[in-house]
Order: sequence, then C-alpha cells, then structure tokens
Amino acid sequence: MTDQVFKAKLRAIQADRSSGAAELARSCLEILIETALQDNSDSTQEFLDKLISRIDSLSLSRPSMAPIANLLNIFRENIAKFKNHPPLEARKRCADAARQIIKASIIATEKTVKNAAALIGNNKTIFTHSYSSTVLQTFTQLSRQNLKVIITEARPLCEGFRLAEKLSELQIPTTLITDAQAGLFVRKADMILVGADSILSDFSTVNKTGTYLIALSAYDNSIPFYVCCEKYKQILPNGKQPELEIMSPEELKAPVLPHVNVENIYFEITPAKFITGWINEDGVLRIQPH
Amino acid sequence: MTDQVFKAKLRAIQADRSSGAAELARSCLEILIETALQDNSDSTQEFLDKLISRIDSLSLSRPSMAPIANLLNIFRENIAKFKNHPPLEARKRCADAARQIIKASIIATEKTVKNAAALIGNNKTIFTHSYSSTVLQTFTQLSRQNLKVIITEARPLCEGFRLAEKLSELQIPTTLITDAQAGLFVRKADMILVGADSILSDFSTVNKTGTYLIALSAYDNSIPFYVCCEKYKQILPNGKQPELEIMSPEELKAPVLPHVNVENIYFEITPAKFITGWINEDGVLRIQPH
Repeated sequence: MTDQVFKAKLRAIQADRSSGAAELARSCLEILIETALQDNSDSTQEFLDKLISRIDSLSLSRPSMAPIANLLNIFRENIAKFKNHPPLEARKRCADAARQIIKASIIATEKTVKNAAALIGNNKTIFTHSYSSTVLQTFTQLSRQNLKVIITEARPLCEGFRLAEKLSELQIPTTLITDAQAGLFVRKADMILVGADSILSDFSTVNKTGTYLIALSAYDNSIPFYVCCEKYKQILPNGKQPELEIMSPEELKAPVLPHVNVENIYFEITPAKFITGWINEDGVLRIQPH
Repeated sequence: MTDQVFKAKLRAIQADRSSGAAELARSCLEILIETALQDNSDSTQEFLDKLISRIDSLSLSRPSMAPIANLLNIFRENIAKFKNHPPLEARKRCADAARQIIKASIIATEKTVKNAAALIGNNKTIFTHSYSSTVLQTFTQLSRQNLKVIITEARPLCEGFRLAEKLSELQIPTTLITDAQAGLFVRKADMILVGADSILSDFSTVNKTGTYLIALSAYDNSIPFYVCCEKYKQILPNGKQPELEIMSPEELKAPVLPHVNVENIYFEITPAKFITGWINEDGVLRIQPH
C-alpha cells in the first residue's frame, strides 16, 4: 500500500461519521493488514518502521475514541517480537496478529451484547441516543421478546434516521423523536442504553453529544442509565484524556451570518455519577446504586 | 367579518409556529376588534353572542398558551357591561376594550424587558432556547453592554436560525448550537434566560420542548435559570392545566417507515425546583435559592 493510498484511507477514517469507535478500530487494523501483506521493504526493520509509523498516524486519527489507540497499542506491542523474522514471515505474522485482535474484539462485542440482552429481558422499552452498533445488536437479539425502542434523531447528521431504518426492518415498534424531546420520553422508558466512544478511568463516558442531557433526565426520573461497550474502550489511568472532536459547522446547515459562530462539538462526557452501570464482556459493573 | 374569514384566521393562529404566546394573544384580540367593527347584527345581544362565540373558539386555539385564554377572559368580562348600549356604541366600546388590553400587555412586556435587562447588566453571556420576543427585546436593550449570547437551533423548525439573524443584525456576538449541545454550552453562560408560553400556579413553566433539559444542566452546573414573561401568562390556581400541543410529525423530515412512529411534542413543563426566578413586570420573583 503506497503512502498516497494510506493517506486517503486515513482521511476516510477521520471523516467517517457513520461508524462507531469499535468498527473504526477494526478498520484501522484492516488497513495495517493490507500494509503488511502488500509490503515490499528490503528488510524486516524497514517494514516494521513503516508499520509503526502508520500505527502512530492511525492512533491519532480519532482522539475521542479510545478503542482505536487501545487496540493499536496491543498490536504495536505484539509486533515487536517479530523483528528477528525474515521480511516475508514478519509480514505474515503481523497480519495474523492484527486478525487475532479483530477477532478478539468481535468476540468481546458478542459477549457484551449477550450480557446487555440478558439484563434487559422481556417486554421492555429501551431509550437510546445516536447510533451504536453494540446497542443495535442488542436490540436485534431482543426483537422477538416484545421489545419497544425510543430513539433520538441525533443532530446534526441524524444517524437516528439510519437506526430507525434498521429497527423498522427488524419490525421493532420504535418511537423517533428530536433530541430536545428526550426529557419527555426518557420517563416512558424502562432503561436508557447507550454505547460509548470511550470510558474514562473513573467510568465517566464519552459518547455522542446529547448523552449527558439524557443521563440528567434519566437521573431526575429514576430511570436506570446503562452504558454498553467492550472493556478495551476504557482509557487506562495513565492514558491520555480524550479530546472532544469538533466537526464542521456546515453540518448544521445553519445560515452563515456575521457575528454568529456555529459550533459542532460531536462528543461529550457524561459524569459517572449519572451512570447506573457498565455492561461489558465480563458482565454488568454497577457504577451507582440508583 | 364573515364566519368563513374568521375560521381562516383561527386556523392561521392554530398553525402559527413562529409567534410567541403573547403575540398570538394580541392577534386574537385584533381579530375580535375587526369582528366588532365589521359587525352588522340587528341587536346588541346578537352582536355580543357572536363575539363571545368567537372568544370561545380563540380561547381553545392554543392549549399550551395561557395568555390567550387569560387575555380573552379579561375581554369577556369587560364586554358584559356593554349589553345595554345600542349596537353601534357596543361595537365601538368592545373594540376599545380590546385595544386597552393589547396596550396593557405591551406595557407589561416593556416593563418585563426592563427588569430582565437590569438584572443581567453589563458584560454577560446569556444562554437561551427557542425564540421568545421578550428575550429578544431584552437582548436588544443590552446590545451596547458587551452582551454575548448562546442560542439553540430549536428543532424541528429551527426558529433559532431566525433568532440568529436578528442577533446578527444587532451585532451581538452569538454562538449557535444544536439542541443536543446544550449541556456543553450551558456551563459557558452566566445565566439562562427563556420566555414562557404559560406559568403554572406553582411556577413550573411551559415552554418549547428542550427547556427542561437545559434547566437540568443549568442546575447541575450551578448556573442561574430565569424565566421572563408577563404575569398574565400564569394559569390561575383554578385554571385548566395546559395541554402540551402536538404538531405534525412531518416537521421532523424523518423517513416514513413501518413500525416507526415519529413524535413531535412542542411544549414541555420545567418543574419549579429547577427555576431560579421569574422576571415579570413587577420585578424578579425568586423561586429557588440556587
């Protein structure tokens, strides 16, 4: 893979508004598999240097999303041990190592989904925000258990409309609302279930902007608020705190006016004190007693 | 004014998404002035019966907006005393009574605006939601006092864009955000200031959906939350509780899908416990100590 092709793929990762953090982390690993398999460096050291430089670029591509840096870190640690192999063998082993990490992350997601579905059970109404593939998989598992779902449109790009289409295909009775109506509809739900882009070391959660408001109204109405995501989404205590990514203000399609500044901050932190629990591949971790 | 013309005007009041409750209440009184001046009933009783029937229809036109019923109630009480006048005189007196009520309501708004501007003072950043003409008049008064404003787009019809245009004309530095970003931007403000469609007898406030979420995050961040509106917006203790008006789901421009129900509830109640104070024509009424 030439540098030019790599840079185009990196830009696509940066611009992607529709994939979740876990999907993007796996896409990054796929890019590194291609890099390894298409490599034609003269030496293993030259190959590994190139791979590590690309790992570094990809790690910084989406600063609100911990799993990208976390999974790429595991990969970076794995490949160091291939430095004494001949180039052809090193490339193959690097590709295999990346595939292993992808596979492990998919298994972690499957277990997380199973745990979320078990916690929810039959005949429940679940409120979610934005588009999380883990949450969608949970809804898919529960589609024959008399599940009802309330979803937000999730401005500015309205990925809630895409989620509505998936839920419609699954024949799940769904209520679609504006983000502003969250306070009116949270109280009609049995539980709030959202994905996460990152979990901080204190269990505060980085997710699509609007999540904090939903958590506040869930707390005010005594509705349990759960985050569901794999453990590798957590930032380690010594890890870098996530940047809250800012996207183009043009996404709002607001009028362009002198003296008016349009803001489009995509992610926000929901403090742990408003989070009932974290559902991950190990089970349900209680964060707050409410 | 024929019944046909009246019905068209009534429908326009019901469909109006851009005017506030006070403006619509005054528009109702203007319709009644026209009704009076164009009347050609044979007797004063016939005229008053027609007028009262139209007062009744207009009173029910916007069930989330207390001032419509409140101002029309004052008018209904006033006109009873003209029943012994000849028709021509009764029509003139009814029109004058309606003009008096309109005038008094404008004076109440002016005093409310003056009190809000005095409370805010110089060099402040104020966060507001939706479009309130009382709030806009307050911003206009403060436009030379180094005011900064943060506003929401206010889905589904985005009346925040219209407010942005007005603030741009006033050269007030303005930040425009999605409704979902309220939690991120409330903490950058010195105060939240919103209008109201109705105030309940316990000071809970009916306003555009999304207001409750903003009040929750203001409370969580210890930012004072003020409502500014005239006293006639309060529902008396024996008054009918407001209905939260539901508008067409088509306003969301969401995809039409089987199993997916789009909801568009326009107004919500913000409980008094999250409201710092009510600014009206008399001054500032403290509701909560925070």
